[in-house]
Amino acid sequence: MRGRRCDHSQVETDTDTDSDTETMRCISCKEEYGTIDAGTCKECYEEASETEEELKREIEDLKAKVAFLRFWSQLDHHHSNRSFGPCFTDVVLVASSDTGSTGSPVPVPANKAVLASRSPVFKAMLENEMEESRSGTIKISDVSYDALRAFVNYLYTAEACLDEQLACDLLVLAEKYQVKHLKGYCEKFLVSKLNWDNSVPSYAFAHQHNAKHMLDAALSLIIDNMDKLTKREEYMELVERDPRLVVEIYEAYLSKQVNTAAQRVLP
Amino acid sequence: MRGRRCDHSQVETDTDTDSDTETMRCISCKEEYGTIDAGTCKECYEEASETEEELKREIEDLKAKVAFLRFWSQLDHHHSNRSFGPCFTDVVLVASSDTGSTGSPVPVPANKAVLASRSPVFKAMLENEMEESRSGTIKISDVSYDALRAFVNYLYTAEACLDEQLACDLLVLAEKYQVKHLKGYCEKFLVSKLNWDNSVPSYAFAHQHNAKHMLDAALSLIIDNMDKLTKREEYMELVERDPRLVVEIYEAYLSKQVNTAAQRVLP
Repeated sequence: MRGRRCDHSQVETDTDTDSDTETMRCISCKEEYGTIDAGTCKECYEEASETEEELKREIEDLKAKVAFLRFWSQLDHHHSNRSFGPCFTDVVLVASSDTGSTGSPVPVPANKAVLASRSPVFKAMLENEMEESRSGTIKISDVSYDALRAFVNYLYTAEACLDEQLACDLLVLAEKYQVKHLKGYCEKFLVSKLNWDNSVPSYAFAHQHNAKHMLDAALSLIIDNMDKLTKREEYMELVERDPRLVVEIYEAYLSKQVNTAAQRVLP
Repeated sequence: MRGRRCDHSQVETDTDTDSDTETMRCISCKEEYGTIDAGTCKECYEEASETEEELKREIEDLKAKVAFLRFWSQLDHHHSNRSFGPCFTDVVLVASSDTGSTGSPVPVPANKAVLASRSPVFKAMLENEMEESRSGTIKISDVSYDALRAFVNYLYTAEACLDEQLACDLLVLAEKYQVKHLKGYCEKFLVSKLNWDNSVPSYAFAHQHNAKHMLDAALSLIIDNMDKLTKREEYMELVERDPRLVVEIYEAYLSKQVNTAAQRVLP
């Protein structure tokens, strides 16, 4: 790691050995090195250190800005069983497939201005005096209460504590309500969890929800293991369910082979 | 600047000259240098470059987060003379000293949830069913319409286009409504504009509005120019208006002299 500074007496001429082999002391790690392992001159080192300090200051400034802009969310203390208290909400979201413990769905309170600010879909819905705007209730189908709560919380705070299931659920909501930042966040998380075992379902999921980055990563992983692909159960299921997606895998594989062959021919 | 990379053939032994003086080529600036100007070893250079790339990625992520969290403000298009359109506002702020062109003050629309999220003073005011919450009108005294508009816009977006007058006006509002982030932003701007000519009024202003960072900077500038202080008109005005502040300047000056003397005595 950088940041360790030393005084400027870094040059130590090794007078005991061969006269044309000098060793120097690195300003950063303070280890001795010979010319073959030389990196930068002193001026560039100092410049780079300044740049690093500037970048760190910029990060601090941006973090403070994020903390300021992060919206106070009435959902933050949900698990503490405290009553919400006044929080200026003017709309509720309801997971229409979720029936909660009492038989009727648990509403997630929110603020029209926040929803409209984060999602062009909510904005159009709420500005245009549609049913949702009049009733003050937005029904959201095929989502659990927990995913809906995490979704609204993200709109307030730009934060979510993801696992793979939640990341999938939130990606679907982010795609549906055009919340690009959340979609990118979920995609990044899911790509980091990609492995051979989940590559085929991940590929199909990414395809279905228009997650380009995840699609490319999953496809690349599949193509690198084509010899094992056809034996997999998920592969056979996909052939049954959506053969066009399987065709796209073969097309990508073929395209890669052609490119590789072309590169071999080139000088 | 960093970022210029080269191949790894950076070592060039200067065989024409004295055998114990080698020159190397800096990986960063590609200039030749001798051992006396050596900076870091190659490993540390590569590590530092990686660190720099990581910091830059973090900055990009944070910038995207800021853009996501920045609130859509109904004031953004004010100067384009477009009508505001629906923007889910539920409260107006009125500059009570400003009478606008029609004789009655021009209200600045806002959202209770945004105000409460950014300022603990607004939060308490709006949660506790005070006059402002019931009437939906918050009167703000001793402020111009332009400053109030910039204030509300900052609460939405964390952005303001400052000049010195506006920075002072916003600092006063930020102090009054406890919007720390805005106060720090204004203080930083005003400190960057500090000079000998404005140092005394800046010092008095910082004192009045509890701007510690600005106060220290102005005081330090004044103390460094004590020989010229008493001739200044602003000094004489300050002696008339608030002699305690002048006493504090002399106390700080004395304290600095004592410290300097003590340091001279120490080995």
